[in-house]
Amino acid sequence: MEFQFYMPTRVITGEDCIRKNKDAFRALGTKAMIVTGARSAKANGSEKDVTEALKLADIEYVVFDKVMSNPTIACVYEGAAAARKAGADFVIAIGGGSPMDAGKAIALLAAQDISEDDLFKGQYENKILPMAFVPTTAGTGSEVTPYSILTNDKAQTKTSIATPLLFPALAFLDGRYTKDLGITTTINTAIDALSHGIEGMISVKANPVSDVLAKESIRQIGECFKALKEGSLTAAHREQLLYASMLAGVVIAHTGTTAVHSMGYSLTYFKDIDHGRANGLLLAEFMKFTAAGRPDVIESIITAMGYKKLEELEKDLEELLGAKEAITAEEISKYSSIAIKAKNIGNCPVVPEEKDLIKIYTESFGLSV
Amino acid sequence: MEFQFYMPTRVITGEDCIRKNKDAFRALGTKAMIVTGARSAKANGSEKDVTEALKLADIEYVVFDKVMSNPTIACVYEGAAAARKAGADFVIAIGGGSPMDAGKAIALLAAQDISEDDLFKGQYENKILPMAFVPTTAGTGSEVTPYSILTNDKAQTKTSIATPLLFPALAFLDGRYTKDLGITTTINTAIDALSHGIEGMISVKANPVSDVLAKESIRQIGECFKALKEGSLTAAHREQLLYASMLAGVVIAHTGTTAVHSMGYSLTYFKDIDHGRANGLLLAEFMKFTAAGRPDVIESIITAMGYKKLEELEKDLEELLGAKEAITAEEISKYSSIAIKAKNIGNCPVVPEEKDLIKIYTESFGLSV
Repeated sequence: MEFQFYMPTRVITGEDCIRKNKDAFRALGTKAMIVTGARSAKANGSEKDVTEALKLADIEYVVFDKVMSNPTIACVYEGAAAARKAGADFVIAIGGGSPMDAGKAIALLAAQDISEDDLFKGQYENKILPMAFVPTTAGTGSEVTPYSILTNDKAQTKTSIATPLLFPALAFLDGRYTKDLGITTTINTAIDALSHGIEGMISVKANPVSDVLAKESIRQIGECFKALKEGSLTAAHREQLLYASMLAGVVIAHTGTTAVHSMGYSLTYFKDIDHGRANGLLLAEFMKFTAAGRPDVIESIITAMGYKKLEELEKDLEELLGAKEAITAEEISKYSSIAIKAKNIGNCPVVPEEKDLIKIYTESFGLSV
Repeated sequence: MEFQFYMPTRVITGEDCIRKNKDAFRALGTKAMIVTGARSAKANGSEKDVTEALKLADIEYVVFDKVMSNPTIACVYEGAAAARKAGADFVIAIGGGSPMDAGKAIALLAAQDISEDDLFKGQYENKILPMAFVPTTAGTGSEVTPYSILTNDKAQTKTSIATPLLFPALAFLDGRYTKDLGITTTINTAIDALSHGIEGMISVKANPVSDVLAKESIRQIGECFKALKEGSLTAAHREQLLYASMLAGVVIAHTGTTAVHSMGYSLTYFKDIDHGRANGLLLAEFMKFTAAGRPDVIESIITAMGYKKLEELEKDLEELLGAKEAITAEEISKYSSIAIKAKNIGNCPVVPEEKDLIKIYTESFGLSV
C-alpha cells in the first residue's frame, strides 16, 4: 500500500458561506484580484457576495473579468500583468473551470516571471499568490486540484500546468450560484465530475483514499441522474452535485485523468464540443475497453453508481447527452494521433494504442467501423 | 450542508517510505530535532530510518528522547528549550501518541514564548516549527490532527491544545514499525482508532466527508478483529490498521471526540488504564446511551463494521479487552464530575448529564446499579 495523500485546500461549504467566513480572506492578503468571466459571476450573485465580503473585511480589490471559455495563454499573461499593476497580493477566482484554471496561472505568473515554454515544462520557483476559489458550476473540481488547464495553440490541444503550488488555499462551495445554470450546462458539468470519479478509479494512480472518495462522488452523482434527465433539480440536488464535483476534484488531484480526457480535448479544441460533454461521449466505450483487462475496476464503478451492468450507464449517458455530433474518419484519425501523445494515456491500466483510440472514437460516435 | 474540510498534512505511506522520500525533509528546514521516547523508536527501526534519511539528505539533527507515556507539561517545555538551544528549525516526532502529542507542543513552544496558562487558552501567535511525524502505533491518528493532548495535573485530567498550526506538514506511515508491538498494545491502539471513527460519526460535528472516511476506517478495523482476537496479525493487517488509524485521525480532526474520551481520560489519569483500552471499555455503553436518541447513527456504525446488532460489537470488545479493572462507586462519582466539565461532552448528539455518565461508567464496569 504505497501512496501519498495531499489536499491542503480548506473547503468551506454551505449557503452564504463566503460572507459567513469573510475573515478567512484576511489570512491571504490585503488586496485581491478577482478573476472571472464577463457575465455569469455577476448574474448568479457570486461576485457580489465576494465583493461585499471583502468590503466587510476591509480588503481592497480589483476585478479582471476577461476570462473566456477555454482560456488561452495570452489571457493568463494579461491577467498576471493586471494583477502586478494593481499590486494585488492574492487572487479570488469565481466561475466554472475556465476562470478557475486561469486564476491559478495568473496567480503563478503574477508572483514570478515565467516564459511560455518554461510554464508547461514546470520550470519555476516555489512562489505563487495565495488563492480563494468560488466554483459556480459543479463539474471541474478545479477548486481542490493542483492543475490549471489552458488552451495551447502550439500543441493544438489543452495542456495542463501541474504543481502543488496551484492548490487554492480556500474553496467556497455555495450551491446557490449554480441554480440558474441551464440544464445542458448542468448535465455537461455533472458528467465532467462523473468522468473524474470514474477515471480516478480506473487510473493506475488510484489509491485507497481516492477510491473511497471517488465512490462517494459517483454515488452522489448517480443519485441525481433522474433529476438531471427530467430537468427537475432542487436546491438539494445542486448542493449534492457541487459536493460530488469537489470530491471528484480531490480524486483527480491524486490520480490524474485517463485517455477519456486526452481524447476529449481534441473534441473541444477542434469541434468546440463542451469539455464535460466530450468526456461523456467517450466514457462508456473507454470503460468497455478497460473492462477487457480490468473487469474488477469497472464492476466496482458500476456498483457504486447503483447499476448492475455497464450498459445501464451507457444508456443513461446517451439519454442525458442526446444526439451526437457528426465526426469523420479523418477527424478521428487526427484526434487519435494527438491524444496518443498525451501524458494521461499512461494512467490507463489497459494502455491503449492509437488504433484503440480510433476504435473508441468510432464506436462512441456510432460510425461504422 | 454546512461544513468545512481541512487536512493539510501530506500523508506518505508504504514500506521504506521515509528513505524513499528523504528529500521531503528538505522543505521543512536545515536542522531537525527528533522527539521520541527512550526505547521503542530505537527498537523498531524507525529512528534509524529517520536519521539515515537525514544524513542522506544532508540535514543535521539532534535527538530529544525523553518523552514519557502521557507526556507532562514540564516535558514539553524541556523539549522546547532543548530545540532552541540546538537551533533546530523543524521537528520530527517518532512514536505513539505520546511523542507525537509532545512533538506538537514542543514545535509550538520552540517557536514562541507561551506561558502554561496561555497554552491551554489558545493565546499565541501564528508561529510553529514545521513538523514531520512517524507513527509507530496504529491508534492515535495524531499525525493528521490539529490536537496535542497533554497530562494536566492542575486539572487532574488530560487537556488538549487545538489549533490548525498543529497539523504536521508530513506524516510517514510505514507498517513495519508496528510489527513488534505486543498484542495488548496492538489491541488497545486499534480500539483507540475504532473509537475515533465511531465517536466521529456520533459527533454533532460529523460532516459528509468525515462520515465517508469514518466508515472506511471502521470497516478496515472490523476486518482485522478476527486477527486481533487470535493474535495472528500479518504485515498486511499492520498496514491496514495504520491506514485506518490515520483515517480516523482525519475524522476527529473535523469532529472532535465525545463523552467516551472525556470519561476515558479519568481512567487513564487516576487508574493508569491505557488510553485506547479506557475508550474501549466505555464505548458500547455510550453507544447504547446514544442509540436511545439517535438510533440511525448507531445503526450505520454497526453496519459499517459488518455487524447486525450493537450487542455483537459489545461482545467482540469484551473478548478483545478481557477482564475489567475494579472500580468503586466513589471513583465513578469523582470521574463523572470531572468528565461532565469537558468540552467534548458538547459534541454528543444526545447530551449526557452527570447521572448519565455515572450510569455509563457503572454499566461499563459491570457494577450493580
